[in-house]
Amino acid sequence: MASVQDITVSASINLLSALAFLMAFAFLRLQPFNDRVYFPKWYKKGIRASPRRSGPMMKKFINLDFRTYLKFWNWMPAALRMPEPELIDHAGLDSAVYVRIYLLGLKIFVPIAILAFAVLVPVNWTGSTLDDIKDLTYSNIDKLSISNVPSGSIRLVAHIIMAYVFTFWTCYVLYKEYQIITNKRLQFLASENRRPDQFTVLVRNVPPDPDESVSEHVEHFFCVNHPDHYLSHQVVYNANKLAKLVEDKMSLNNWLTYYQTRFERNPKKRPRTKTGFWGLWGKTVDAIDYYTEEIEKISKEEAAERETVMSDPKAIVPAAFVSFKSRWGAAVCAQTQQSSNPTLWLTEWAPEPRDVYWNNLAIPYVELTVKKLLMAVAMFFLTFFFMIPIAFVQSLASIDGIKKVFPFLKTLIEKESVNSIIQGFLPGIVLKIFLAFLPTILMTMSKVEGHTSLSSLDRRSAGKYHLFLIVNVFFGSIITGAAFQQLQKFLNQSPSEIPRTVGDAIPMKATFFITYIMVDGWAGIAAEILRLVPLIIYHLKNTFLVKTEKDREQAMDPGSIAFPTSEPRIQLYFLLGLVYAVVTPFILPFIIVFFAFAYVVFRHQIINVYDQKYESAATFWPDVHRRVIIGLIMSQLLLLGLLSTKNAAQSTPLLLVLPVLTIWFHRFCKGRFESAFLKFPLQEAMVKDTLEKATEPNLNLKAYLQDAYVHPVFKGVEINRPAVVDDEENNPLVSTKRKSGKVSKASSREGSP
Amino acid sequence: MASVQDITVSASINLLSALAFLMAFAFLRLQPFNDRVYFPKWYKKGIRASPRRSGPMMKKFINLDFRTYLKFWNWMPAALRMPEPELIDHAGLDSAVYVRIYLLGLKIFVPIAILAFAVLVPVNWTGSTLDDIKDLTYSNIDKLSISNVPSGSIRLVAHIIMAYVFTFWTCYVLYKEYQIITNKRLQFLASENRRPDQFTVLVRNVPPDPDESVSEHVEHFFCVNHPDHYLSHQVVYNANKLAKLVEDKMSLNNWLTYYQTRFERNPKKRPRTKTGFWGLWGKTVDAIDYYTEEIEKISKEEAAERETVMSDPKAIVPAAFVSFKSRWGAAVCAQTQQSSNPTLWLTEWAPEPRDVYWNNLAIPYVELTVKKLLMAVAMFFLTFFFMIPIAFVQSLASIDGIKKVFPFLKTLIEKESVNSIIQGFLPGIVLKIFLAFLPTILMTMSKVEGHTSLSSLDRRSAGKYHLFLIVNVFFGSIITGAAFQQLQKFLNQSPSEIPRTVGDAIPMKATFFITYIMVDGWAGIAAEILRLVPLIIYHLKNTFLVKTEKDREQAMDPGSIAFPTSEPRIQLYFLLGLVYAVVTPFILPFIIVFFAFAYVVFRHQIINVYDQKYESAATFWPDVHRRVIIGLIMSQLLLLGLLSTKNAAQSTPLLLVLPVLTIWFHRFCKGRFESAFLKFPLQEAMVKDTLEKATEPNLNLKAYLQDAYVHPVFKGVEINRPAVVDDEENNPLVSTKRKSGKVSKASSREGSP
Repeated sequence: MASVQDITVSASINLLSALAFLMAFAFLRLQPFNDRVYFPKWYKKGIRASPRRSGPMMKKFINLDFRTYLKFWNWMPAALRMPEPELIDHAGLDSAVYVRIYLLGLKIFVPIAILAFAVLVPVNWTGSTLDDIKDLTYSNIDKLSISNVPSGSIRLVAHIIMAYVFTFWTCYVLYKEYQIITNKRLQFLASENRRPDQFTVLVRNVPPDPDESVSEHVEHFFCVNHPDHYLSHQVVYNANKLAKLVEDKMSLNNWLTYYQTRFERNPKKRPRTKTGFWGLWGKTVDAIDYYTEEIEKISKEEAAERETVMSDPKAIVPAAFVSFKSRWGAAVCAQTQQSSNPTLWLTEWAPEPRDVYWNNLAIPYVELTVKKLLMAVAMFFLTFFFMIPIAFVQSLASIDGIKKVFPFLKTLIEKESVNSIIQGFLPGIVLKIFLAFLPTILMTMSKVEGHTSLSSLDRRSAGKYHLFLIVNVFFGSIITGAAFQQLQKFLNQSPSEIPRTVGDAIPMKATFFITYIMVDGWAGIAAEILRLVPLIIYHLKNTFLVKTEKDREQAMDPGSIAFPTSEPRIQLYFLLGLVYAVVTPFILPFIIVFFAFAYVVFRHQIINVYDQKYESAATFWPDVHRRVIIGLIMSQLLLLGLLSTKNAAQSTPLLLVLPVLTIWFHRFCKGRFESAFLKFPLQEAMVKDTLEKATEPNLNLKAYLQDAYVHPVFKGVEINRPAVVDDEENNPLVSTKRKSGKVSKASSREGSP
Repeated sequence: MASVQDITVSASINLLSALAFLMAFAFLRLQPFNDRVYFPKWYKKGIRASPRRSGPMMKKFINLDFRTYLKFWNWMPAALRMPEPELIDHAGLDSAVYVRIYLLGLKIFVPIAILAFAVLVPVNWTGSTLDDIKDLTYSNIDKLSISNVPSGSIRLVAHIIMAYVFTFWTCYVLYKEYQIITNKRLQFLASENRRPDQFTVLVRNVPPDPDESVSEHVEHFFCVNHPDHYLSHQVVYNANKLAKLVEDKMSLNNWLTYYQTRFERNPKKRPRTKTGFWGLWGKTVDAIDYYTEEIEKISKEEAAERETVMSDPKAIVPAAFVSFKSRWGAAVCAQTQQSSNPTLWLTEWAPEPRDVYWNNLAIPYVELTVKKLLMAVAMFFLTFFFMIPIAFVQSLASIDGIKKVFPFLKTLIEKESVNSIIQGFLPGIVLKIFLAFLPTILMTMSKVEGHTSLSSLDRRSAGKYHLFLIVNVFFGSIITGAAFQQLQKFLNQSPSEIPRTVGDAIPMKATFFITYIMVDGWAGIAAEILRLVPLIIYHLKNTFLVKTEKDREQAMDPGSIAFPTSEPRIQLYFLLGLVYAVVTPFILPFIIVFFAFAYVVFRHQIINVYDQKYESAATFWPDVHRRVIIGLIMSQLLLLGLLSTKNAAQSTPLLLVLPVLTIWFHRFCKGRFESAFLKFPLQEAMVKDTLEKATEPNLNLKAYLQDAYVHPVFKGVEINRPAVVDDEENNPLVSTKRKSGKVSKASSREGSP
């Protein structure tokens, strides 16, 4: 049990480190040569450009205007100033709704915290159970928690009433928010310009036909079954190999540029490289010649493959993007069953072109279900038994293990200092490395499951990560023990015993979670805004690879919201807040600070930095809603268990009502709102169609849709971006301070750093 | 533990009683005056009619042709002889598929029984654990069961392998059967004649409009959003009160007829009745005058109500049957979302007209979800706590309880004989009465849940009854204790302990379930074919009410398959068979006899007796499939528990694979087949539309659909029957022996019994 002092110390350390990150950010962002790291979104939109050659050389790299440093906090109000409709226009609905998750946290927890401090803290403080126990394991914080209330005390009524109040408040806020987001989504979809995906349906599992090619078969099928609405279709080529070649070629090109730059700087010595993996081993050759040769080779291969794909009928996968004459026709086709065999001619809304995950378009039904089974089993083992391989690797990563595997390192290891580092840090580092790879592993698993769009892949990965966090971070911290040990424990305990065990341990872990919130939450968010990794990579690339303005454009890595990892992490804070609201309200201010801080930071990031890869119009909200509900139900069950250890078993039926009501509320919301995120109502489609017919009677839709769903490798590397960007170019949405000074001089296409 | 002798005695008693029922049936069905009880379906179809007046009077009532008695078993081969396609034409797909459930039982259990007797019985028999225990609690039957295998023996490998084999066989048969039924359903739907429900969609939750009536609003909405396909619509009147009046009037009419008949037979004395409930108390009046008056009164009321309903706009509920110009248009509308608010303009396939449950068409969304919540909670309490009110009533129904409530019965009760009867039978009878009312209670609960068709009501009730049977009959018999005691026990046991407790008790209960199968299964089915209650009621009605041939037509009660009760009962046998297949294979022959016997009996009944109230084209099959899967998973978990008590814990992971695979198989089948039972593919719709356009280009569809979905009270009492019946009149499908003798003389419209 940490005392108040411990917490204070920890809080100040974390506050200081967060502050240090913020100061570093405030300083770095003002330096012009970091401009593309901290404001890439404006460059992508074409509003900002590199500073011109004119003016003092120095000024292009370092900001010498000291007045700007004095106002270094200004980014915060600036981030909050942009009104939401503009934010949606500027950054897309996905991003705007994503920051609303933090807002939701504030909406839920600020009133709960006020109530809890007004009612529960006094009740707990005067409970005075812990006064009698002169024990070091209790601190002043515990005096504010339910631990200080005597067993079977009438005071527990206050906690039960508060559990009801908090549940109703949370549900109310969730309901309101779901309603708001649903309306925003519908509005967004309604106000959108014409987009190819509005007219297009993705058809999968086209059955093979002995007499017709896939293309003919699709055309005939839809001509017959949607005679008044079918317009055209686009077959899908199996271009996975080609895409791989294009990617390889790009990487080789990068190396070539790197060596050429080196050669230019030092023309006396031609750079040499080794032919093996990453230039680490193999025959040493002249680098520029080698890469030029390799690129030529791969270009030929690419051309051959391109030829094959375009001409070989076997390279066409049994899937197609079918376009319709109207949104109504597409909405009908996407929502209905086509064939009497429900595993053939599967139709669904086409994702927007840049959201398509091309590799998964052609998986037959049986293979898909088998893969799903395998992934479910793998997920189970990953969640509950992930500690076993880690422990194995950790044992290898000990001194003896290293000695055995790499005998030549023996002398190095046996030095005292190296030895202690290995023993102290290596096991922790192994775990960290695994956890860093975890999102990639989960994403790979989601890909195997066969989802057809990047957005659904993100959503599925987030679901997996959420499960992992609940089991391994939440329960793992409370019960302390590897997940499979917990599982074993739970299996051998009665279902009514489980919440009791966990509930009993909860108040004692409050201080641990407070520290966790500060380290993972506060400092993590501050690190997010600093963007240390993209900063370094950008400057490395800028030094070695960038030759033209276009290269610099590509060297920018605006990144995007890492939905699959960050959303489940937010959910962990919701869970902690809901669980501890009744038990140890002292944790709530820390969570509120996290939500408020994260809200400002992410609002800044989506305005200035992130460039989303796709726009799904907030399709993820039902998941967010469901996970908050899961947290709410868990908090109710754990409170039930906690109270039953407090000799308040008679409260059980009273508290059991809560999860039942919450589940019902969830089902109610699901029925009320969810289909707005899954289906496209015919009425809306009809309204848009009618409008369009009136305003643009001579529209050539077929030409418009011609190349919308062509695999990106056939269009060159760049993926088409929706037309909406053009509008914004003439109509910048926010004016940051820096822009007003620089944009006027912008639009130059030259210069290197 | 019952010994082999006990079982033999029980088996012979039950066999004899079943035989007695069968003999009675064989005798009674040959008597012409019972013809309408045992062959009502043929009368309904118009193929059979009452015997003519000509011929010896006696022959009309009693069959004197002794040769027919010698062939009294003939109904069995006759029942089996009709090929399935004809059966589907004759009795509908629902009935034909229903008897296939029994066939499914045979397909699953006959090979399993053969394998089990070939492999497991020798393994168990030579296990010889029980030889050592010279205990009276074991019988020879237990020597055939897994109890006879020593703990931790290698012999248990045989049981594990068999568990795998049985699971795969069951899944294989289930898959094949699902495929067959799906094809039959699609064929049935494809070959159907034109029916109103193919063109019609039920629209619910029409939002109120201040300027338009419901009818106008519906018309405008669908004209706008389905411009090419909308044809017409039929508003729904709230005619519940009117329907009640019509029903009351019919009952009064029956009483009038009854008294008139009595008066005719005994013209000297005018019959008198009391005005109170069922003529039991109140003022004594002249019966005929009284009822004539009452009928007049109610007729006026009915006319007034009819007037009100037709003219008052408030009597129109916010729901409508919307018809389309083509099946394609209807299929599109039924499967898509209309409005951006998913709780408004809800569309679904219209049930066929006679399947509509009119009372539930107008429930708003919020009310519906609240009702569902309440019913779920009520179902929980009904399942687990139903013994509490029963025990209370039983305590009242004791001697002392009766004395207290009805003091005037005191002298009667205190007689020795009456006393013993009350003490012995009353508690049992109270339970029986409750169980007899249970299906009605469950059906009422399903009605509250707001389903809109009789078929879905039946399916939901069956689901509830299935849960009740599993908890109260299966687990109740194994653990012996009221359900809430079991629940308590389970909640306080660890999840891994539960299968162990139950699994341990399972082998000991085998003999109990064998007896249960014979009493409930064998004798129950034999009683089903005898139709004692309809027999008595028909003869009572025939004596007192029947005046014309039409009356006699109405006095017939062909009944229908009681799906909500009989399907869950079959599932209990599936569950028993699957659970005991590995544990005590000795039970299997009894189950096989049940399935075989029931198959023959129900095939006979659906050919000759039952008249289904609706035709849902086997929509219930996914439920049947799911419940067999539930039984399979339960059997696997219980085997797991049983083996873990046998010191074979190392088998646990091996056996855990089974439920995972089974659940996956279920999901696979669900994806593969289920939508054929929920949706109507556009391809099929288009084929039928095109065919119809070619064959009947001048069809006036609007006239055809005009009155299809009018509330039955507005059409008179009789509900429209689909046209298919007419075809069969000219084309009788099976020729029973009796028909060949009588039908030639038939078609007369006179005569009383």
